[in-house]
Amino acid sequence: MSLKNFLIGSPLHTVQEKKERFTKLVGLAILSSDALSSVAYATEEILMSLMVGGIALTHFSLPISLCISLLIVIVAISYYQTLIRYPQGGGAYSVSKANLGRNTSLVAGASLLIDYTLTVTVSVTAGVAALTSAIPFLFHHRILLCVLCTLILTIANLRGIRESGRLFCFPVYLFIVTVAITIGLGLYYSFFTPEAEPSTKSVLTSNWPLWILLRAFASGCVALTGIEAIANGVQSFKPPEARNAGITLIWMATLLGVLFIGITYVAKHLGIIPVLHETVLSQVVAKTFGRGIMYYIIQAATCLILLLAANTAFAGFPKLTSIIAYDSYLPKQLTSRGDRLVFSNGIIILALFALILIFIFNGYTSPLIPLYTVGVFTAFTLSQAGMVKNWITTKTHGWMRGVFINGIGALTTGVVLCIVAVTKFIHGAWIVLLAAPLIVYLMRKIHSYYSRVQNQIALKNGDTIPHYTKNRALVPISGVIKTSMNAIAYAQLITKNIDALYIALDPNDGKKIQKEWAIWHPEIPLKILESPTRSLIQPLLKYIEDIQDQEEMITVIIPALVPTRWWHQLLHNQISILLRMLLLFKPKVVTITVPLRIEE
Amino acid sequence: MSLKNFLIGSPLHTVQEKKERFTKLVGLAILSSDALSSVAYATEEILMSLMVGGIALTHFSLPISLCISLLIVIVAISYYQTLIRYPQGGGAYSVSKANLGRNTSLVAGASLLIDYTLTVTVSVTAGVAALTSAIPFLFHHRILLCVLCTLILTIANLRGIRESGRLFCFPVYLFIVTVAITIGLGLYYSFFTPEAEPSTKSVLTSNWPLWILLRAFASGCVALTGIEAIANGVQSFKPPEARNAGITLIWMATLLGVLFIGITYVAKHLGIIPVLHETVLSQVVAKTFGRGIMYYIIQAATCLILLLAANTAFAGFPKLTSIIAYDSYLPKQLTSRGDRLVFSNGIIILALFALILIFIFNGYTSPLIPLYTVGVFTAFTLSQAGMVKNWITTKTHGWMRGVFINGIGALTTGVVLCIVAVTKFIHGAWIVLLAAPLIVYLMRKIHSYYSRVQNQIALKNGDTIPHYTKNRALVPISGVIKTSMNAIAYAQLITKNIDALYIALDPNDGKKIQKEWAIWHPEIPLKILESPTRSLIQPLLKYIEDIQDQEEMITVIIPALVPTRWWHQLLHNQISILLRMLLLFKPKVVTITVPLRIEE
Repeated sequence: MSLKNFLIGSPLHTVQEKKERFTKLVGLAILSSDALSSVAYATEEILMSLMVGGIALTHFSLPISLCISLLIVIVAISYYQTLIRYPQGGGAYSVSKANLGRNTSLVAGASLLIDYTLTVTVSVTAGVAALTSAIPFLFHHRILLCVLCTLILTIANLRGIRESGRLFCFPVYLFIVTVAITIGLGLYYSFFTPEAEPSTKSVLTSNWPLWILLRAFASGCVALTGIEAIANGVQSFKPPEARNAGITLIWMATLLGVLFIGITYVAKHLGIIPVLHETVLSQVVAKTFGRGIMYYIIQAATCLILLLAANTAFAGFPKLTSIIAYDSYLPKQLTSRGDRLVFSNGIIILALFALILIFIFNGYTSPLIPLYTVGVFTAFTLSQAGMVKNWITTKTHGWMRGVFINGIGALTTGVVLCIVAVTKFIHGAWIVLLAAPLIVYLMRKIHSYYSRVQNQIALKNGDTIPHYTKNRALVPISGVIKTSMNAIAYAQLITKNIDALYIALDPNDGKKIQKEWAIWHPEIPLKILESPTRSLIQPLLKYIEDIQDQEEMITVIIPALVPTRWWHQLLHNQISILLRMLLLFKPKVVTITVPLRIEE
Repeated sequence: MSLKNFLIGSPLHTVQEKKERFTKLVGLAILSSDALSSVAYATEEILMSLMVGGIALTHFSLPISLCISLLIVIVAISYYQTLIRYPQGGGAYSVSKANLGRNTSLVAGASLLIDYTLTVTVSVTAGVAALTSAIPFLFHHRILLCVLCTLILTIANLRGIRESGRLFCFPVYLFIVTVAITIGLGLYYSFFTPEAEPSTKSVLTSNWPLWILLRAFASGCVALTGIEAIANGVQSFKPPEARNAGITLIWMATLLGVLFIGITYVAKHLGIIPVLHETVLSQVVAKTFGRGIMYYIIQAATCLILLLAANTAFAGFPKLTSIIAYDSYLPKQLTSRGDRLVFSNGIIILALFALILIFIFNGYTSPLIPLYTVGVFTAFTLSQAGMVKNWITTKTHGWMRGVFINGIGALTTGVVLCIVAVTKFIHGAWIVLLAAPLIVYLMRKIHSYYSRVQNQIALKNGDTIPHYTKNRALVPISGVIKTSMNAIAYAQLITKNIDALYIALDPNDGKKIQKEWAIWHPEIPLKILESPTRSLIQPLLKYIEDIQDQEEMITVIIPALVPTRWWHQLLHNQISILLRMLLLFKPKVVTITVPLRIEE
């Protein structure tokens, strides 16, 4: 308890909740860390995919990144439409729930849950990669570092860190500015130095260059992850919310496109090739600035913006699970807010899943990218398709333009989704294509269970409420000792109808204990139940069955010892727990434990 | 439950217990498997210890085994005395408890518990080594084989295998006869062939040859393990019990000495050197018989007798723990017999410890030997010393002879214990020298806890038994639903004094729910407890504290749902369990769960 208070802080009152409103400058920093941070690994993913076809293909990195930037423009415009239409904040789950129906919204919800988990995993592993690029000996401790980062984020979010939101601006703008300078410097050099020649001969090693190019495109699409954040968070902006959010979205998309193309161009010009121990961005910075103070500052900024990106998932995931749980498609516990006004259960579950993925994928970023991209583009497509349906149904002002823009958005993201799913299927996309339907299935199962329960516990007009008149107390005793007397005293308080029971393993014990018993409680006869197979539970269950018809309600009163230290419990048999569990399933039987506390 | 019945069999009635009485021939087989089986590894241990000092020292294996045989004679005679004096079966724990006091008996008990565990581990690993010597590719699966053997023994003992005791004779006599033939054949060859010359030059590589010899002696002393079994099991023999047991003991000691010296001699004559993948015994048999059908029969017999040796610990350990637990020095659960009339908890705990040791020591026999020997000789020494004390105190007929014989036994085994502890300290003896005092400490702690409990729950003359007159029921409800109505109905059955409580996370909820409530239960006012920090438990605990002084007894009645499938429980919050646990520690508060079962 005190450890919990130390880590998480003392409980907050519900009235203490406050919402911060962002200016455009702060909103950009807080809501775009996820999107912007992806430039730290998107170029590298393209290059790695191209490398499979031979060094020669790496020259295609620039056209591919131009295609992806076009995609960024299309998706950003689509989301601009969304935020105008849903200024209250329209996530893919809500938009598709309102427009495309239950099942589609569950698919969107499942993809988003997968996405948030992968946002944490990808960002944390990439952030640690920025760190280990700068300090190589840490490479072998990367899993430990990933775990530490995840735990720090978890604890910070369990405390509720929203109040310090403004602090987040610094690393984001540091990253934007320093990366922009790097690109500028790279461009400046590129006018004076010839393009680097690949060190090995340029040979095309694949017979399927188009396939390789498509796959590289699919890899690069990870740059779009997080682009929806502003559209989902319109209400965080100062009024006029939609206008401020819209402008911020345009800024973000522009920055994202420019930084992404810039890094890709410079990396290509410098002839940089992905290697295991150092990120492409780290190589670019090292080649332009050298490994001086600037290099370390940029690596630190990269690591920080990636951790902030991971942090956005820690805000989004618990919020989304609480919404879905409120709709009864996830366990209800996800709707309750913990001591610090955050959805603690969601935070803990997100951290658990992220840690599992970190362990499974050994702390590497790359193998996680296909999983991430499939999930993100599923959510994009469903969200845009939902908007199209919404425009068509409502036919509000400007609906034709809306259909056109969101239609193009849905179509483009849908096509990209197919490209990613097909070209990256064996590289991990299959995991999401398997997991998402499974999650949807579980959600439906959960919902049907809750409906069933709801149905059975609801009181309807005309229902009669139960009323009992007879109660018999059974007190199984293990000896003529104080615990038994305590239980009997309680039984006498609630009924006159008491059976004291002794389960005799040895038939000779019975008489002896009956005599002892009569000294203390001559008014309550002690019944001896023989147990030829030495079970302490079977004879009692049988006795209950035998008398059940004669009584309305049977109360089993179990005398118990409560030790001061939990491990002392190991020195007592746990029959009362087993008995209680078994009796839970018997109708009209309730169980009471009357404890006697053992003093030190 | 049905899996349990399949593996273990259906419960037996207490009256079905029967004890088999052995003839000398059967008793020898059943009670000597532990002792005799040690010839399968004792020679190898001597040779391995000598090898450290160079091949030259291996010539000392014969004199060392002669010394150990002398030790066998001394210990056997000592135990002969013991069985005459304690025909009811005197284990080291009982003998030292009766004669040397509590603490000494706990040391003996701890050593015996360690011994039994090591009997399982050493015998199983050695048995598997006999198997993998014959079928080399199994060597890499030895841990799996050890685990399988241990599990089979566990299940067999949980079933209670005593009835098939007679079956055990066959492998024991097969082992005795075939090993005797091997030795005979070896001796026959040794008359006609010159002694094998060590393949490498005989160089003394140690500066401390005496130390090496002492260590080899210490290793060989493992041959004595199990020699006490007959003295402990006198009552298993047909009358006259002591006489039959005594004769059997002499037979066993003779067989043990002869087989041990024989194998050592033949191994030395054939120039056999211990190797990792094949046991010395397997090499001896292969060199005398060749690897034909006889070889495989002998390996099988060796494996079987070793498993029978492990099995003796599965009989002894649970019996000993039940005796110690009966004295309140181990958890009381160890005294209760399971469905099949065996001390199931002891069997399971023994298997667990044995498996842990198998994993820690990687399925090898050799590193376990020093641990084993220290434990065994501690028990020997204490048991013999207890006998000396007993003779001196009682001064019965022949007490002077008794003192002399058992004195020599105690002295010899005590000296050997010191030799083993010192020469094998760093090789593992330290583990036992550390574990034994720890076990004794735990035993004393357990005893003091039980005394404390006993003291606090015992009813003494003049004690007044508790009697209550006032009871208030608190029913925390989560809504106007059937579960709440059930709980209220039960509350009305046991008292007129009922508080229905609703914990409001949102102050607006309160009024609404009070109105709904009044429709169904206008006679019971619903109190609203506000929870500014959203805790469902704190307001209730505070309410209980507030009213506690006014009432003698408070009954908290928790409405609960009971799902049909256990995993559905994950979809409900577990606050009732937490609440119940916290309330256990409040005096004069009892908790009842009134369940409503959810139908499929």
